[in-house]
Amino acid sequence: MKMNNLKENERYDELNRKGYRIIQNPDTFCFGMDAVLLGGFAVAKENENVIDLGTGTGVIPILMAARYEKASHFTALEIQDISVDMATRSVECNGLCDKIDVVKGDIKEAGNLFPKGSFDVVTSNPPYMNENHGLTNPSDIKAIARHEILCTLEDVVREAGKLLKVGGRFYMVHRPTRTVEIFECLTRHHMEPKRVRYVHPYKDKEANMVLIEAIKGARPMLKVLPPLIIYESAGKYTDEVVRLYEE
Amino acid sequence: MKMNNLKENERYDELNRKGYRIIQNPDTFCFGMDAVLLGGFAVAKENENVIDLGTGTGVIPILMAARYEKASHFTALEIQDISVDMATRSVECNGLCDKIDVVKGDIKEAGNLFPKGSFDVVTSNPPYMNENHGLTNPSDIKAIARHEILCTLEDVVREAGKLLKVGGRFYMVHRPTRTVEIFECLTRHHMEPKRVRYVHPYKDKEANMVLIEAIKGARPMLKVLPPLIIYESAGKYTDEVVRLYEE
Repeated sequence: MKMNNLKENERYDELNRKGYRIIQNPDTFCFGMDAVLLGGFAVAKENENVIDLGTGTGVIPILMAARYEKASHFTALEIQDISVDMATRSVECNGLCDKIDVVKGDIKEAGNLFPKGSFDVVTSNPPYMNENHGLTNPSDIKAIARHEILCTLEDVVREAGKLLKVGGRFYMVHRPTRTVEIFECLTRHHMEPKRVRYVHPYKDKEANMVLIEAIKGARPMLKVLPPLIIYESAGKYTDEVVRLYEE
Repeated sequence: MKMNNLKENERYDELNRKGYRIIQNPDTFCFGMDAVLLGGFAVAKENENVIDLGTGTGVIPILMAARYEKASHFTALEIQDISVDMATRSVECNGLCDKIDVVKGDIKEAGNLFPKGSFDVVTSNPPYMNENHGLTNPSDIKAIARHEILCTLEDVVREAGKLLKVGGRFYMVHRPTRTVEIFECLTRHHMEPKRVRYVHPYKDKEANMVLIEAIKGARPMLKVLPPLIIYESAGKYTDEVVRLYEE
């Protein structure tokens, strides 16, 4: 099933899950730890239908397809041609064409591209940064992945709300600094934050990421899960993070 | 300065701060770790004017008066006669009559009892529980301290917003399960959550308390501080908690 389908400057990176690999181009954008953490946090149950909004190279659906073999199907929505192309070839080289569809399209229109309420699970690792002034190259792939240039938090949450069925789950990774705005936006779109996990680089440092599960139409009642600590000491991952990368 | 001014079933408890003591009645209500944590989290700077809403036995102002000697003044507002009486005698026995005023009054009316915008800092350890059905004795002191019988989250936050000057700080301890509602309520009353600290009984357990600092009129930007872990192992406090009780 595997073949060499790399283009210039691309490489295969091992995902350490069922032998899956992902095509990345270190000159443009490689997935970060946030994607790995979201892939470990999000859950897809038997027969569930999943969509990833702004999938980039497709890392989250590929990680979840490895972890949740009984999930029904994954849709990987991405707006940038180069990323759509890489994600499509990564799905092919892992033999996942029956499991994952890579679709080119705009998050802002996601609710019109697919039937409303047709997904059990929505995942997203959206751009975090809403201060776009001073960007030297706003059409740069990295800039689009990191800054709210082509879509905002509001866009992602609004479209997730349209795509989810009642009782469906939205999983997102974002910056803790924006938690207040994220909660407000989720509840306004009828998704109730039910579980959050804050990610701290060290146990005595402020959180720099937050993993969120919101459920459409649920009652308020938030669980704040144990903190996820990345480093035991400089350069040494905690056991939990090692397991996330190795499982 | 110190005298025996105990009534039946009351006792002195040492606060381990400047020799201060507090009068409590174990048959009615004793302050918990949440009060100690809030007393350690809240900050009162030089010349600042502080009010504690629902002070109970006065533990938070007394702890803060010990820690922040340069603060200008503390007001301790409490509705229950028995608690007002105990708090008043605790202030007396610690020689803090010039520093702390115990005032009998209703949180729901706090914004009318004092001039609006007259405080730099508001603190509160309000009742956490909003499900009051099944309470056998809703006039019980403990029940009033723990359940939203005489005041709700909305009441506490609304009145804090009236009492604070612009730029003033509101410190509250509450249940993590209600974080979403708390953030919504704070922002609606023009207080922006700026720092939160989640408290976990063990490092691998869900949070069971949250410490919140909100600033009136501030811009959005939340810091999620390092987790506060209570127990290292069964019955053994972490060093940080030991320091909180001993300092």
